[in-house]
Amino acid sequence: MSRVTPELVANAYAALMSGDRNEIGKYWAEDMRWYVPGHNMLSGWKTGLNAFLGFMRQVGELSGNSFRMDNICTTTSDEYSADVTRNRGQCASIPAKQLDITAVHVLRWRDGKVIEGRGAIMGDGTAQYDQFWSPV
Amino acid sequence: MSRVTPELVANAYAALMSGDRNEIGKYWAEDMRWYVPGHNMLSGWKTGLNAFLGFMRQVGELSGNSFRMDNICTTTSDEYSADVTRNRGQCASIPAKQLDITAVHVLRWRDGKVIEGRGAIMGDGTAQYDQFWSPV
Amino acid sequence: MSRVTPELVANAYAALMSGDRNEIGKYWAEDMRWYVPGHNMLSGWKTGLNAFLGFMRQVGELSGNSFRMDNICTTTSDEYSADVTRNRGQCASIPAKQLDITAVHVLRWRDGKVIEGRGAIMGDGTAQYDQFWSPV
Amino acid sequence: MSRVTPELVANAYAALMSGDRNEIGKYWAEDMRWYVPGHNMLSGWKTGLNAFLGFMRQVGELSGNSFRMDNICTTTSDEYSADVTRNRGQCASIPAKQLDITAVHVLRWRDGKVIEGRGAIMGDGTAQYDQFWSPV
Repeated sequence: MSRVTPELVANAYAALMSGDRNEIGKYWAEDMRWYVPGHNMLSGWKTGLNAFLGFMRQVGELSGNSFRMDNICTTTSDEYSADVTRNRGQCASIPAKQLDITAVHVLRWRDGKVIEGRGAIMGDGTAQYDQFWSPV
Repeated sequence: MSRVTPELVANAYAALMSGDRNEIGKYWAEDMRWYVPGHNMLSGWKTGLNAFLGFMRQVGELSGNSFRMDNICTTTSDEYSADVTRNRGQCASIPAKQLDITAVHVLRWRDGKVIEGRGAIMGDGTAQYDQFWSPV
Repeated sequence: MSRVTPELVANAYAALMSGDRNEIGKYWAEDMRWYVPGHNMLSGWKTGLNAFLGFMRQVGELSGNSFRMDNICTTTSDEYSADVTRNRGQCASIPAKQLDITAVHVLRWRDGKVIEGRGAIMGDGTAQYDQFWSPV
Repeated sequence: MSRVTPELVANAYAALMSGDRNEIGKYWAEDMRWYVPGHNMLSGWKTGLNAFLGFMRQVGELSGNSFRMDNICTTTSDEYSADVTRNRGQCASIPAKQLDITAVHVLRWRDGKVIEGRGAIMGDGTAQYDQFWSPV
């Protein structure tokens, strides 16, 4: 098994951000799944690449495309990677609502593609994340 | 800068679990700090190795020493490591209260010692973690 | 101003449960609003009787019509009432998920009709309520 | 059974605020209990008048005596009262942390004294209340 590298992780996220479905498919397995933390309307498992991309679109829409992730560090092993990002955004319907959290994403890889991702949020960011996506 | 290795991470946790203060000091810097997630009575920054060890003792006492961590994976880079663990325990005062969460700890290293650690919990585990440490 | 009575409160809830829109309109003002607690997908202000009834239908659907309220006590004044209820239900999509909370509803009255209602949940029930309506 | 009146409720709270233990004992039964909402370090049952008064003292200390309650309405029945208050305060150790919630307290009465009280918080105030009392 070839080791997962920080470059591979960076390429996978770059493909995701490009929105190019072919490019995305090079790094993210069709049968992947993704676990969104918290207990808000977006929380829980997204099963399949299409469901994951649908989740990403929803994040974009609900935040008026203001959502952005800045990488802090990336760690890897033969099978896993973990990247820490500072995530910021503004609520599309209530602009006064700001999100500013530090999250970590643990990705599991197989044959150069992500087959599972799980997010987790540091500090009291999970409560902030829940409140950000709620109507109140 | 020498790369952080999974072995180094494993040794640091083994030292921590040994309770041997000299051994712990080999892997955890005296001026380290640790960030506990959630908004419960244990949450927030623990500044200094002694404060971090005090936090660990409190976890032990409040869980009647039932708290245990099982490693799922460890990833590393030159400066950081991230280890995912399944954490289980039972509340000492309310035995019906069980904790079963998957957490990730992002450690920052300098000269072979941890200088900062931050925990984060997957899924809806942060709410469970908050409820576990509360009196209700 | 005539005092609000427990009988009036009971009649208003009975009309609500009957589903008869004409009957409901006798006790609930068309321009009423209702405040759902927590930070879940149902939380926040429901403005107007139709929005409130839409919320009630959603509670019914998401709980497979298992949601029920049992009255514990009702208090009144000239302008307000407060009724405490034990609310129980089962999640339609995840039957293992049970709700069992004690809530209080503070209703404001004008000319014999409810013009505003706000719910609040005792103990740690708000977290349970948030988790009940989340996908995880 | 004589009906609980808004005047009786107001007198009970005035006695509580006076800090005069004899006066307090006229309205609050020695074997009363009080249920604090949320899952923070103050949450849960306080059993006995002394435990309840200890809780009130803790609220005062942790808020640098900035905690205040403003009555919005009071409702009563033969056995119960419910009072809605706007509660505001500032964290003693982190002054930037403000509390501004609307709560309702349901009191059960026997022979002119409170034998049980349970608080509940409207909107998303329970999360705010939990965060207010946490160290983060």
